[in-house]
Formats: sequence, C-alpha cells, structure tokens
Amino acid sequence: MSKKIVYIERKEKLCTAHRLYSHALSHEENLAIFDKCTNIHGHNYVLYVTIKAPIDEKTGMVINFTDLKKIIKEKVFVKMDHKYLNDDVEEFKTLVPTAENIAYVIWQWLKPEIDNLYEIKLEETDNNTTIYRGE
Amino acid sequence: MSKKIVYIERKEKLCTAHRLYSHALSHEENLAIFDKCTNIHGHNYVLYVTIKAPIDEKTGMVINFTDLKKIIKEKVFVKMDHKYLNDDVEEFKTLVPTAENIAYVIWQWLKPEIDNLYEIKLEETDNNTTIYRGE
Amino acid sequence: MSKKIVYIERKEKLCTAHRLYSHALSHEENLAIFDKCTNIHGHNYVLYVTIKAPIDEKTGMVINFTDLKKIIKEKVFVKMDHKYLNDDVEEFKTLVPTAENIAYVIWQWLKPEIDNLYEIKLEETDNNTTIYRGE
Amino acid sequence: MSKKIVYIERKEKLCTAHRLYSHALSHEENLAIFDKCTNIHGHNYVLYVTIKAPIDEKTGMVINFTDLKKIIKEKVFVKMDHKYLNDDVEEFKTLVPTAENIAYVIWQWLKPEIDNLYEIKLEETDNNTTIYRGE
Amino acid sequence: MSKKIVYIERKEKLCTAHRLYSHALSHEENLAIFDKCTNIHGHNYVLYVTIKAPIDEKTGMVINFTDLKKIIKEKVFVKMDHKYLNDDVEEFKTLVPTAENIAYVIWQWLKPEIDNLYEIKLEETDNNTTIYRGE
Amino acid sequence: MSKKIVYIERKEKLCTAHRLYSHALSHEENLAIFDKCTNIHGHNYVLYVTIKAPIDEKTGMVINFTDLKKIIKEKVFVKMDHKYLNDDVEEFKTLVPTAENIAYVIWQWLKPEIDNLYEIKLEETDNNTTIYRGE
Repeated sequence: MSKKIVYIERKEKLCTAHRLYSHALSHEENLAIFDKCTNIHGHNYVLYVTIKAPIDEKTGMVINFTDLKKIIKEKVFVKMDHKYLNDDVEEFKTLVPTAENIAYVIWQWLKPEIDNLYEIKLEETDNNTTIYRGE
Repeated sequence: MSKKIVYIERKEKLCTAHRLYSHALSHEENLAIFDKCTNIHGHNYVLYVTIKAPIDEKTGMVINFTDLKKIIKEKVFVKMDHKYLNDDVEEFKTLVPTAENIAYVIWQWLKPEIDNLYEIKLEETDNNTTIYRGE
Repeated sequence: MSKKIVYIERKEKLCTAHRLYSHALSHEENLAIFDKCTNIHGHNYVLYVTIKAPIDEKTGMVINFTDLKKIIKEKVFVKMDHKYLNDDVEEFKTLVPTAENIAYVIWQWLKPEIDNLYEIKLEETDNNTTIYRGE
Repeated sequence: MSKKIVYIERKEKLCTAHRLYSHALSHEENLAIFDKCTNIHGHNYVLYVTIKAPIDEKTGMVINFTDLKKIIKEKVFVKMDHKYLNDDVEEFKTLVPTAENIAYVIWQWLKPEIDNLYEIKLEETDNNTTIYRGE
Repeated sequence: MSKKIVYIERKEKLCTAHRLYSHALSHEENLAIFDKCTNIHGHNYVLYVTIKAPIDEKTGMVINFTDLKKIIKEKVFVKMDHKYLNDDVEEFKTLVPTAENIAYVIWQWLKPEIDNLYEIKLEETDNNTTIYRGE
Repeated sequence: MSKKIVYIERKEKLCTAHRLYSHALSHEENLAIFDKCTNIHGHNYVLYVTIKAPIDEKTGMVINFTDLKKIIKEKVFVKMDHKYLNDDVEEFKTLVPTAENIAYVIWQWLKPEIDNLYEIKLEETDNNTTIYRGE
C-alpha cells in the first residue's frame, strides 16, 4: 500500500537588516563584488520551510502547521527577525550573510528540530530566491 | 535527439468549506489537535496540476491548457468547488479533509484521466501548501 | 503648518465559511440569484482596515500597527475567523452574508473602537472585492 | 469636451534598513511603543507614486513611465535604496523613520519635481501600508 | 437611515498585443518618445471595473459579480482579449493605445451598460497602472 | 565536508507578442487546436532562471545576482522583450512559439553562457506555467 508521502511547506516573513562585506577580501574587492550591498540595508525575507514525510493515518497530517510555525518562531525568528544579521547573529560574524549562506544557516538551525526537513527556500527580494536542501 | 521533456502547470481556484474532525479520535483529542479548525470554516484553495511529458513536435504543446482546465473542472470542481467537503464529498466521510488528504484525493481523481500526471500542489492559505506526487 | 494627514491600512486574513440564501426570497429565486453560492462553501477573506488621521508628532505614527491588529483580532476575528457565518454570527441570521454585507457589518463592529476609521475593504476572492466607507 | 483626467501609478521597490527610536521619548517609552522595532532591521519597501493629470492628446500619455521612473531613481533611490535611514538620511536624524514619516518625506522630495503629484503609497510589509496625499 | 453605499470591484485579465506609434508625430519623434514600445509587443493586462452603488436590501448585493463579469466579457473581451489593438480595434486606429487611452476607451464601452460605473483601473505591467473615473 | 549546493533563481519580466499557428497543420487544424490564440496577442511573461551550484566560500554566493541579470538581459531580453516572436525571432519562424517551445529556446540561449543552468520556468499567464530542465 502507498505510504502517501507528501511535502508540506510553511511560509513566514522576516524583517531583517544586513550588509555584504567579507573579511577575506580587501575593501576594494568588497566594493567591486558587493557594490551598494556593502551598505547597511534590509529586506522582508520570505522563508519557506518544507518537510517531506508520510501522512499520519489518524490525523491526516504530516505535522500540525501551527506546530511547524512554532518551531520556526523559536529557532529562526528569535535570532533573525527585526535584527541586524552582521552584528546580532553569531554565524554571520564569520560568514557573509548572503541569501545563500542565510538559507544554509537556517537549515543548520532547523535540521536538529525537524527530522524530515526537505528544503529551505528564501526569497530575499521578489526577484532573487535561494534554495538549500542539505546537499 | 533530445525528447524535450517539459513540466506544464495549470492553476485553478476553488471556494470550499471544511472542518477538521477525526472519528478515530475522541472529542478532546480532536480539540487538542485541530483546535479552531474543528469549526466549519473555508478557504480559497489554489490548486496546481502539473504534467511531465515530451513536447508534441507538431503542436509545440504537451496538452492544450484549455483541455487540461476542462479535465480539472469535470473531475475536481464538480466535486469540490462551492461545496462543504465533510458532507458533500464521499471520500471525506472517512478521511479527515486536511490539505494533505485533499491533495492525495485530487491525485486519485485525476490520475486515471491524465497519463503523465506529475504533481498536485494545494495552497490552503497563503502560508500553508501541500504537494503530492504519487509516492 | 500642515497636519500631515495620512491613511494607514492593515491587512489581515480570515478563513470563513458561508452560504448565500435570503429568507426574503423563495427557494427558486435564491437558486436563480445565488446559484452554486447557495451551497455551504468558504473563502480566505482578505480584510483591509484603513484609518485616516494626522501623524502624531512624538511617535511618528497614527496608531501602532500592532495595536490596530489587536483591535481587529478582538472585534472581528473572534466572531468570523474559522467560523460559519450563517450559523455562528448573530448579524447574518437576518442579513445575507454577501461580501457587501460583511464589509458593512465589520464597519459596525470597528467604528466604535476606531475614531478615524476610513474604509473597510474585503477581498472575497482574487477577482471580487468590496469597499465600505460608512456612506 | 472632457479633459480625460487619469491617475497613473508607478511602482518601485527599495531595500532599506531602519530602526524606530524617538529622541523625544525616554528609553523606556521607546521600548514600550516601538518594542522590537527599536532594533536595526529592514524591509523591501514597495513605493507607489501617483500623478493625476489630463492625457496629452498627441502622445496619449500623462508622462512617460520611464521618465517617472527616472525621477524616482534620482530623487528617492539615491537617498534611500540600500541605505540605513537613521544614519544615512538627513531628514531622519530628527524624524522617526516610521512608514508614515517616510511617505511624508518622499512627498517632500518629489513634489518640486512633479507638478501633479497626487499620492505617495508605501507598503512597509505585506500587511502594513501608508498613504500620504499632501493633506 | 444609511443607504449602505459600497464599491464593488471585479478583476479580469486580458492577453493583448499593441505598439505605441502616433500618426500625429514624425518617425523620429515616435522613436524618441516611445522607444522600444514602437515594436509590436504585448501584455497580460489586469482590468479592474468598479461600481459605486447602494446595497440591494433583498439580495445583499449591488450587482451579481457573475453578471458584472458577463458584461465585461461581452463589451471588453470580445474586442480586446487575444487581439492586436492597433489593427483589430476601431478606436485605436486614431488613438495611440497607451494604458491611459485604453482605460478611457474601456470606460466608453462600459458606461452605457453600467449606470453606477465608478472607475476603470488597468495594470499594464506589475509596475505601471492607470485609472480613469470619467473626469 | 558538505559542498553547500544551492539553487539560486532570478526572476525577470518580458512584454512580448506572439500568435500560435503551425505551418505543419492546415488552417482548419490550427483553428481547432489554437482557437483565439491564432490571433496576434501578447503577455507579460515571467521568466525564472535557476542555477544549481556550490556556494563560493569567499563571497558566499553562487554568482552575483546582478551578473545573472546581465546575462539574461543580453541573451534573452535583446531577442524577446518588446518583440513579436513570430516575426522577430529566428527560432520561431519554424517552431510554434508556445510556452513549452519558448522555455526550450531560452534554455538553448542560456546554456552556453551558464555552466550550471538547472531550470527555465516561464509563466505565460497567472494560470499557465512551463518548466524545462534540459531533459
């Protein structure tokens, strides 16, 4: 019998500031690569967290969406929402807070809490999106 | 020569009522798990039906989008649009009409009509989305 | 000196069921007018509440958006979110719960709480929107 | 004969950081009023600039949308996009950079450049919008 | 007693081609003003038709949204949807089919059919919107 | 150690006209299959270009989004934006410019420029989307 494997995706929004500046690069290289993004600026990040798992026969759910929301609030929002990533988040004192690295870091935060975590998708702007799947 | 395999996705919207309540659970368990969703309420479900198949060399299409729309209207809308799932749809007399189970049931309805059906995606709200791929 | 009059708009979403059926009309008239909307069905209503007022010089705000959100939760969500309007809301035992009447009723609920209430906008679907301004 | 008065609206996006903190208030009052918004954070602001004017009979336009875009880039983007409002923008050294005040300040910047300026609309988040019309 | 005046807005989409080229201007002037828009190109126009009228006490509606949709289909879609405006629409043999003029022409088509027509809003792209209110 | 493989997606919009008409079919067959799409009409195509590649340790990026944008402008916009595909684009003199074929052709244009190209997604309308992944 089919296991009924589904993907469920929860969307949340974060209001966060950052700047792109690498300590492994010279000031000139930073300006050449990151240009105006070297200034402090910000985004309404849109975060999508996806789990891939079988439907529970009793409840008809993979996980309660409100429980998933709670985990995201506790593990991601507390650290990133209404914050300035470069100063306020430990990981971004060494990593440049690009969308790629933010997606990777959120995966690290959520993986221990969510067994069947499948994907972190992060829209930085309406035009720029990054996905990390633990590969 | 490449077969030119593409994915085509058709989006449709349904205005549907439901409540989440499992007959396999006690009243207290239902309230604990489904909370306010135990009340009759409703959604503008957004349904995405995806087919994966080669492009037809003559028409340049996989299937006419208007034909795909017609199949969805006949097999899904007739049963679910402007309906109350718990009372009006046979399958949800035994299955709890969660987004997960609705995506699964729509797959069952469409699979016999669409050979290369690839994915059913269902947005219940702007924040909560479920995908079923026949796994 | 200018008073700096601004309009501020708060958006909230409600998951609600209803049916359109008027006790002032015959069954045949109801079917002729409301068609499939006579069935119990539902929507993700999108509600926009707008206030028109001067900016407070000290805070730079008209009202804190979180306070406005709180009023909407207490006066509108408690009555309408995850509910079946025809059975659960006093006003819709006599009024048909069309988008027009819902916008009117929400105005009645919020007007005593918000001095400078300017507009209630209600999107029932992506295609159908209603506005009430107390006229 | 009718003058054919139309409203044309141009939408642009800005990636900007700010914090809400008023020098006219004590630290405790700032925390009580602005809460987490006292932290440095950011937004993808969506700016809508609207002009109300007659259609030019020869061109069929009010103003070329690309010219309007150019004015917005030169008068608003240069000052606000990829910037930290509290430090980088003169006006926000005295005014708290709330959405209300930002809309007001953008009006001041654009009014001398656009004769028939009608409205500045600023979406700070998907839920919070402010409009200023020079009143 | 209040008349309960509401605004109801219907949204429809049209897939239409056009080019901007004025016979009242020289070829050089056309290129200088309309640039790449002098080429044949196209848009998914989003049309919003708004009526301002009292709620009918018996039905709770201003007009049935499906009736409004039918009028738009018969008076606007037949002429503009899946058409090339410059060749296929009488009005645009003399008027340049800018968004401003299209909004104005749609008003002329709908005004005789809809007594309380309030506004025609036309989004040509996600960034450019035009409104005409019969002024 | 993990390579940190991510997917980055850039979104761009094109305003383009086309008609669906196959020279391999009779006039009657064209009308039967493509119906109103045999007329010249147009769309605001939404194009998503996705790259799958490891994060560069030094910059924290896969590729600068502005560089990706530049490639899309040079290789896709120059050919398709504000154009009439059937007349202006070499490939569509033989291929019917369906969404499927357009996605395929854009892949051919971008593949030589982008080593790790993963996916071309093309939204023709809000309801109809096509994906090509080089399969």
